[in-house]
Amino acid sequence: MSAVPRRIRLDLAYDGTGYAGWQVQPGRPTIQGSLEEALARLQGGAAVRVRGAGRTDAGVHARGQVADAQVALAIEDAGITHALRAILPAAIRVLTVRTVDDGFHARHDAIAKTYAYYVDRSAAGDPFLARFSLHERRRLDLDALDEALALLPGRRDWSGFASSPCVVADRVRTMSAARRVSIRPTLDALAFTADGFLTHMVRNLVGSLLEIGVGRAAPPRILEVLASGDRRLAGATAPAHGLTLERVDYGVTMRAP
Amino acid sequence: MSAVPRRIRLDLAYDGTGYAGWQVQPGRPTIQGSLEEALARLQGGAAVRVRGAGRTDAGVHARGQVADAQVALAIEDAGITHALRAILPAAIRVLTVRTVDDGFHARHDAIAKTYAYYVDRSAAGDPFLARFSLHERRRLDLDALDEALALLPGRRDWSGFASSPCVVADRVRTMSAARRVSIRPTLDALAFTADGFLTHMVRNLVGSLLEIGVGRAAPPRILEVLASGDRRLAGATAPAHGLTLERVDYGVTMRAP
Repeated sequence: MSAVPRRIRLDLAYDGTGYAGWQVQPGRPTIQGSLEEALARLQGGAAVRVRGAGRTDAGVHARGQVADAQVALAIEDAGITHALRAILPAAIRVLTVRTVDDGFHARHDAIAKTYAYYVDRSAAGDPFLARFSLHERRRLDLDALDEALALLPGRRDWSGFASSPCVVADRVRTMSAARRVSIRPTLDALAFTADGFLTHMVRNLVGSLLEIGVGRAAPPRILEVLASGDRRLAGATAPAHGLTLERVDYGVTMRAP
Repeated sequence: MSAVPRRIRLDLAYDGTGYAGWQVQPGRPTIQGSLEEALARLQGGAAVRVRGAGRTDAGVHARGQVADAQVALAIEDAGITHALRAILPAAIRVLTVRTVDDGFHARHDAIAKTYAYYVDRSAAGDPFLARFSLHERRRLDLDALDEALALLPGRRDWSGFASSPCVVADRVRTMSAARRVSIRPTLDALAFTADGFLTHMVRNLVGSLLEIGVGRAAPPRILEVLASGDRRLAGATAPAHGLTLERVDYGVTMRAP
């Protein structure tokens, strides 16, 4: 293969604990920065821009992040995969690399993303999950939690759950699913699928859901926060380390036959 | 309760990544040291000796370590549990605390221990398992692995799998079980139950088993290493981070009615 520029899609998993989030920040380790450095190294130093579907916060993890980049490399996709796996640390793993249509844009083309927030309800706390879940020592009313989650899906203005750094004007998003998945008797994932998320939206939602879970508010409270559009009515922002970007969905791409 | 001295049994789970092993070492963080400091703090500074069933190496984890200590505390077991959970870091978790017979000795009374060595066989490596498993990129012949594991149980001299720091004279131990547990399609645990283990024995066994798994030796080789008693015939010592002390078994304690 010659080094003709082409666009690749990268599917990624990472432990975000030691990183200042997805987005490049000067002088701090980031996921995007690590990928851009690794790809530039493969290109003999020529800079590469990597675009991610979800700009995960500092400390947030991913099991199915999707990114794209234009590269000029004389090696096939499998070769890029192997090279990136060898270069990147164990915390950032490249699941697959695929050459895609030049027009592919990991963020713009995404039709839905799913985030899961892990809650470890064991009394002692599981040290094997400590990096990837919130240890919630208080007793949670799971029925109340499920009732509140069931109220969430729909097309709504989510301003009530956006944090102040959120600068986008249009805060209307469609949440297609919000549910609790019981992974073990004392481990739950609160999973949210939407066509987009505002800054800290899932962590703010989880903060309010936990208030409901411990009985400080009734399930309909979650809609009152939404209706008021006022963040101050919501619970505290849940910590970043419980959150994982699980998957990004794309529509079917039509191609000329 | 008055502060009459009593013996407690502690059941523990820990992420050993950041620790120099179980055993106290001056100036280095250890599991035993962390527990002794926490208990001493509860006792207003009076020193406590904690005895562990298994002296796990640096970087080795535990899901079911058992320890004992004599304490003089005017609080019940549940109170000690809560206090230790509050004092200790998220990496060291106290599952239960129980007052036991004064004669209980976590190591001497143990009749069996089970260690599991986790092997992540996924192509990319799972970043969520990176601290707790060995990422084995080479293709493993699982049938050969199972065949070799099946040869291990029995009462034998395990010198061939003891590392040089092992100073015990009697190296005869009875292994009651050695098997592969498939946890996910690309995640296996190699689990070993025995009445005792020599220094690095599981990690040395795993090193030789992986040599067999990749086809560098046939399954009977595992017995040749044992018969020769010569470590130099064995594979490399597998890294510590893949190993977890899963459980410690005790016989039924007879008590006067």
